[in-house]
Amino acid sequence: MNSDLILLGHGSGGTLSHQLLDELIVPTLSGISPGAQNDSAVLDLPGPRLAYTTDSYVVDPIFFPGGNIGDLAIHGTINDLAMVGARPLAISVGLIIEEGLAINDLKTILLSMRHAADRAGVAIVTGDTKVVPRGKADQLFINTSGIGSLDPSVRISGSAACAGDKVLINGTIGDHGMAVLSRREGLELATSICSDSAPLYDLVAALLAELGSDLHVLRDPTRGGVATTLKEIARQSAIEVTLDEASLPIDPAVAGVCSLLGFDPLYVANEGKFLAIVAPEATDRALAALRSHPLGRKAAVIGEVSEANPGKVRMRTSIGGLRAIEMLSGEQLPRIC
Amino acid sequence: MNSDLILLGHGSGGTLSHQLLDELIVPTLSGISPGAQNDSAVLDLPGPRLAYTTDSYVVDPIFFPGGNIGDLAIHGTINDLAMVGARPLAISVGLIIEEGLAINDLKTILLSMRHAADRAGVAIVTGDTKVVPRGKADQLFINTSGIGSLDPSVRISGSAACAGDKVLINGTIGDHGMAVLSRREGLELATSICSDSAPLYDLVAALLAELGSDLHVLRDPTRGGVATTLKEIARQSAIEVTLDEASLPIDPAVAGVCSLLGFDPLYVANEGKFLAIVAPEATDRALAALRSHPLGRKAAVIGEVSEANPGKVRMRTSIGGLRAIEMLSGEQLPRIC
Repeated sequence: MNSDLILLGHGSGGTLSHQLLDELIVPTLSGISPGAQNDSAVLDLPGPRLAYTTDSYVVDPIFFPGGNIGDLAIHGTINDLAMVGARPLAISVGLIIEEGLAINDLKTILLSMRHAADRAGVAIVTGDTKVVPRGKADQLFINTSGIGSLDPSVRISGSAACAGDKVLINGTIGDHGMAVLSRREGLELATSICSDSAPLYDLVAALLAELGSDLHVLRDPTRGGVATTLKEIARQSAIEVTLDEASLPIDPAVAGVCSLLGFDPLYVANEGKFLAIVAPEATDRALAALRSHPLGRKAAVIGEVSEANPGKVRMRTSIGGLRAIEMLSGEQLPRIC
Repeated sequence: MNSDLILLGHGSGGTLSHQLLDELIVPTLSGISPGAQNDSAVLDLPGPRLAYTTDSYVVDPIFFPGGNIGDLAIHGTINDLAMVGARPLAISVGLIIEEGLAINDLKTILLSMRHAADRAGVAIVTGDTKVVPRGKADQLFINTSGIGSLDPSVRISGSAACAGDKVLINGTIGDHGMAVLSRREGLELATSICSDSAPLYDLVAALLAELGSDLHVLRDPTRGGVATTLKEIARQSAIEVTLDEASLPIDPAVAGVCSLLGFDPLYVANEGKFLAIVAPEATDRALAALRSHPLGRKAAVIGEVSEANPGKVRMRTSIGGLRAIEMLSGEQLPRIC
């Protein structure tokens, strides 16, 4: 590139745009040749049933321990597809760049995106780049959307939890939120906390292969954390969830920082975790399937479903009481994803 | 809503987010019930061949004569799908909202999006909402992505122009860019110029039905205008395009403002126009098909394709000379879409 910083002209649609696209963005993200670029990508899917999702990423800062806004955006969309049981196939990338962003930073982020997509076996097939003047955005916002193929027999849904079901999670909670916060606030911590940002489809596929229709609900507890996500499910399925505080996996460093800063890890965002609600007789098989995968080593059964109080979530505390869990109110951690 | 302005908490993922989504965004855009909302939408397509595209919209101002950022975003994605001959089926919407945006403005924009989608027979099936602090974005950015179904026989591509082909456009050029600019700059013009923002699939379908495989290339001349888009096609197809200046349809008011402000309408963005490159024997049928549709009344044959100088675009001027046409260089009109 003939410049170290992104200029407004890089968003013009003209010569500078083409240069940025042809020399950096397209070769890095997709490798599609200029001659093959059209207004839409054309895909042949394995079948007509598909999952479709989108998310925008505005995380601040754009680099944090364990990842950056780029791989976060790829993982997030892969995970949203995986949460209905779909195999991620194709991703779109929309970049909104603030004038003045270092092209080297952009390059690092794009490389992370490609690496994350390759790792998950997903192709980045279409994209768009806009540039806005300094002060009209904050470095870089990324939108990703994704298409996944879905087996006709899969019926995973937030409305499918049944009384008696068990609630599992594939590992520790709160890591992503605390990693971003510590970098944003420049906290120098004795223990380094890393984001859990990761692509979850492989793990979901293993669980689905083991459980089949005994896998009822999957949802990733991102913004709002485990508490808010369980409230959503409790409402959608019209059931009650009782969490067991003692069995919630938490990294001691994350627990320490949460305690220090007054955050409840139940409300802190995760980017490499999912809640799985499964038929009771499948619990042991689910736990074994999760724990045999690198992204599920610390999996645990953390609660159960009953029909007692539809829409309620309660937590059995370490001292034996029952505490009502509500959705996150207000804004705990802005721009966490 | 219990507030007139968007608050940071509306992006938290918690109670305020759910309220904004359940009371305003989801009912307006899609009507999907809270119980049916999952991390991904699940779709059954008519067949496995599809088109897939994305665009982000950062237009300034967000309201302009003839439209707003919302219907522009829906039209833009419909049009990108149509430009490969695909029938638009499903759209995703990613909102990045600046804290402090008036909820009434958001509502107006969302209503326009739904109206635009309904008009085109497209469903908004999945979405995401983020809120960033004041000064970290500019009112509202919208990303849309879209999926369209594609007949296996359709092979429209920027690389498919052949020597002898004719170049057509469905109407006047430069309307969108000049409409946005005039509103942005607060120009009080005697003649009101309106954006041409419109969904083009119907018109494309009519053309495709008439021409079949005689329809070689479709592309909408948005950022960078007709000049830049023709340069892209000339390079992709390795052909030369010769434009005929006298036959370019231009609204006199747009021509006047361009002349006054020093813009060349060939480089000004359009949002309801496409270039169609067709086999020579199909020219009359193409023109008739375009002119019989409300969005093609002012259609014209504006140029022809030859094999003389691959990658070149030249314009036969009104006084008989030949002028080389290059891509837009620099940034003529930032944030036009």
